[in-house]
Amino acid sequence: MTLLVAGWVALDEIETPFAKVEQSLGGSATCAALAAAQFTDVRLLAAIGEDFPEGERAKLEGRGIDLAGLTTIAGGTTSRWGARYHYDMNTRDTLYTHLGVNDGWQPVLPEGWEDCSTAFMAADDPAAQQGLLAALTAPRATMVDTIQIYIDTAREGVEAAMREADFASMNETEARQLTGIASIAKAGRALVEAGTRAALIKLGEYGAVYVSEDDYFVAPGYPLEEVVDPTGAGDTFAGAFLGYLDTAAEVSAREIRRAIIYGSTVASFAVEGFGPNRLLELTREEVEARYREFRTLTHIEESD
Amino acid sequence: MTLLVAGWVALDEIETPFAKVEQSLGGSATCAALAAAQFTDVRLLAAIGEDFPEGERAKLEGRGIDLAGLTTIAGGTTSRWGARYHYDMNTRDTLYTHLGVNDGWQPVLPEGWEDCSTAFMAADDPAAQQGLLAALTAPRATMVDTIQIYIDTAREGVEAAMREADFASMNETEARQLTGIASIAKAGRALVEAGTRAALIKLGEYGAVYVSEDDYFVAPGYPLEEVVDPTGAGDTFAGAFLGYLDTAAEVSAREIRRAIIYGSTVASFAVEGFGPNRLLELTREEVEARYREFRTLTHIEESD
Repeated sequence: MTLLVAGWVALDEIETPFAKVEQSLGGSATCAALAAAQFTDVRLLAAIGEDFPEGERAKLEGRGIDLAGLTTIAGGTTSRWGARYHYDMNTRDTLYTHLGVNDGWQPVLPEGWEDCSTAFMAADDPAAQQGLLAALTAPRATMVDTIQIYIDTAREGVEAAMREADFASMNETEARQLTGIASIAKAGRALVEAGTRAALIKLGEYGAVYVSEDDYFVAPGYPLEEVVDPTGAGDTFAGAFLGYLDTAAEVSAREIRRAIIYGSTVASFAVEGFGPNRLLELTREEVEARYREFRTLTHIEESD
Repeated sequence: MTLLVAGWVALDEIETPFAKVEQSLGGSATCAALAAAQFTDVRLLAAIGEDFPEGERAKLEGRGIDLAGLTTIAGGTTSRWGARYHYDMNTRDTLYTHLGVNDGWQPVLPEGWEDCSTAFMAADDPAAQQGLLAALTAPRATMVDTIQIYIDTAREGVEAAMREADFASMNETEARQLTGIASIAKAGRALVEAGTRAALIKLGEYGAVYVSEDDYFVAPGYPLEEVVDPTGAGDTFAGAFLGYLDTAAEVSAREIRRAIIYGSTVASFAVEGFGPNRLLELTREEVEARYREFRTLTHIEESD
């Protein structure tokens, strides 16, 4: 079983009220790939510039990620993003977004990767997402994510890409923006009625809501003690969700619910470090221990 | 088994982006009492003015609430509160607070009420809360709530009252204010370390976190479809929580977890109407049906 992760690899500058990093490994695809690598084999499809540090590439290789799709664009510079978080760590200002090599890059699935069993399309031009999904021969589960810029500039494409995937992931704001409905419960249902097969709405530290035609699931957030940097938590969640599903015996409602708890669990580790740094040293034993703890924290015994 | 609810009964003016009411039944004790009355016998201790409409008193009587402690202050006017909600229904501006009869009123436990088996002290002067708690002979469970004004003006009293009760309920902002700690998980632990026996931190639509020396529980919010007015949802949660516990076979971790789900369930009904109005027609069958649905929405099967 192999999971394709397509999206952006970037170098981030992040400032929180407590610390700051520069030229730090980042990007949606990076976070998702590192999270998924806890569970399954991962193939990463993304563009970088000639300036991408060899040491960062080595970190990804060190987690067993297949980098045959990590494409260095001659003369190009890696995408860069800068942001500053406010005191509550829930809101931030984007300082800059330098597209770099992602400006106009059209990802193409490397030869031999058509057989990926699952795929995560991190936020990107929806036409590129659709092209990659169509190139897969028989995936058992696919997920599309997006961000506001694409909803603003390519809304129909975003909606089409979401309908083509098995799961569409988004945050609360994006769910409201896509539907014009304030209630998350109703927005989720509206997305499904409009053709999205399943919507996974991320509530940040408060957990997630999952809505499909057959199921409805609400998961609380894992109680976070130390939030160093929430950047990439949503992509981490998505990567772990699909990574777990890739290895599950079946893609069933039961396994999807477990995958959501795994997603929250791995995301709860990710926020303990800048960007995906905590994931670089995370072990499967730590994940399983916190997953069990999470289950205990939320468990209610059946009535006598 | 009998639950004492002490606090404020008020007449509210509430404006949301979608509707407006004036002179509407409100107040923290009103909401808690009506929620608790779903489960157990309730005694209401509060002050009203001569202007309190007979029809509103009849509504409370109609739900079987013992109003022997609903004290009419001669020449006084009922407390009044006005607020306007913003578009997201999560934030509001308080337009005015007229204390009326609650300005300086010292509640005294009516004779014969010392035997209440549970007690909820809705937000009030902490000295009054402590006095009432001390007057109970052998309660099985007590809870103290507060609001920002008392944390600002009588912080030590609030902390003392919270330590004397079995449970202290508060919202996220109040938990942060009481501890100076941003992380809800850490703030809850800090409260328990400082002597609060158990902290119940309400996360609004996102559920609740429960922290005691022996247990830690996180509950998601029930997916709300129609929010007409969130006023009083926290007190409704508290009233239903204690109302259920009053009838439970034991006050155990298992029953406390169930009580939290009952609290969220009844609160999810309350927001469907202005103030506590929806609770006036709510049936136990509706509560049980939604409780079961809530359990289904959050259930994860054990591993094979």
